[in-house]
Amino acid sequence: MPDSYSKEPIVLREKLARFTEHWAPRTIAAMNDHEFKVVKLQGEFTWHDHQETDETFLVLDGEMEIQMRDRTVTLREGEMFVIPKGVEHCPRATLECHVLVIEREGTVNTGDPGFKRETPGDFWVYAHD
Amino acid sequence: MPDSYSKEPIVLREKLARFTEHWAPRTIAAMNDHEFKVVKLQGEFTWHDHQETDETFLVLDGEMEIQMRDRTVTLREGEMFVIPKGVEHCPRATLECHVLVIEREGTVNTGDPGFKRETPGDFWVYAHD
Repeated sequence: MPDSYSKEPIVLREKLARFTEHWAPRTIAAMNDHEFKVVKLQGEFTWHDHQETDETFLVLDGEMEIQMRDRTVTLREGEMFVIPKGVEHCPRATLECHVLVIEREGTVNTGDPGFKRETPGDFWVYAHD
Repeated sequence: MPDSYSKEPIVLREKLARFTEHWAPRTIAAMNDHEFKVVKLQGEFTWHDHQETDETFLVLDGEMEIQMRDRTVTLREGEMFVIPKGVEHCPRATLECHVLVIEREGTVNTGDPGFKRETPGDFWVYAHD
């Protein structure tokens, strides 16, 4: 097996236990040209879009909303939603919510590399760390 | 929002409640050139690989094993594993296990379009069906 892949199961709750910051996704795995990230959300993010990639949210614990210009969807544990590329959205969560995010590698969470809420703490939390 | 995307949350347990067959993945969503499928596993599949795509398993309920030639990993609820492209593997589960599978669109589950366990029942179970 190539070295860049985890050789052990990736336990999502263990990855989430390793940080406390909100809106600071941690990359936990990659497949093809896509990445899996876990993130803790609370409060409201910023309106943005991703021109080059769809973005998938799968809620692991808690509840969140994804506001879009024409609708808002509420996601709870075991529920997912795919935001099409180019669609403006703004996630928010009243209470802390844990989410698995899937997007193309290199995606910046605000959609704008220069924006201040680009995640400074983004780093790999890998299975064999 | 483009019509090909679900406009409502995709509730994984609802998708799983709509079929009973084992080893018959249902595509529930797509992002970029990848697809999300839910599948119910019980028993042992067949050894195969996918030359063109990594394959991700995320267990939603139950327990499964992924046998590879050099190791076997056990996955439980909330645990995931990425099988690198080209790596032979054979999933198995003693009791029924529910899994979210992510792979590049067009992937055949046995890795061989001519093999008899290609899934005849593969179809879209979409959020707004």
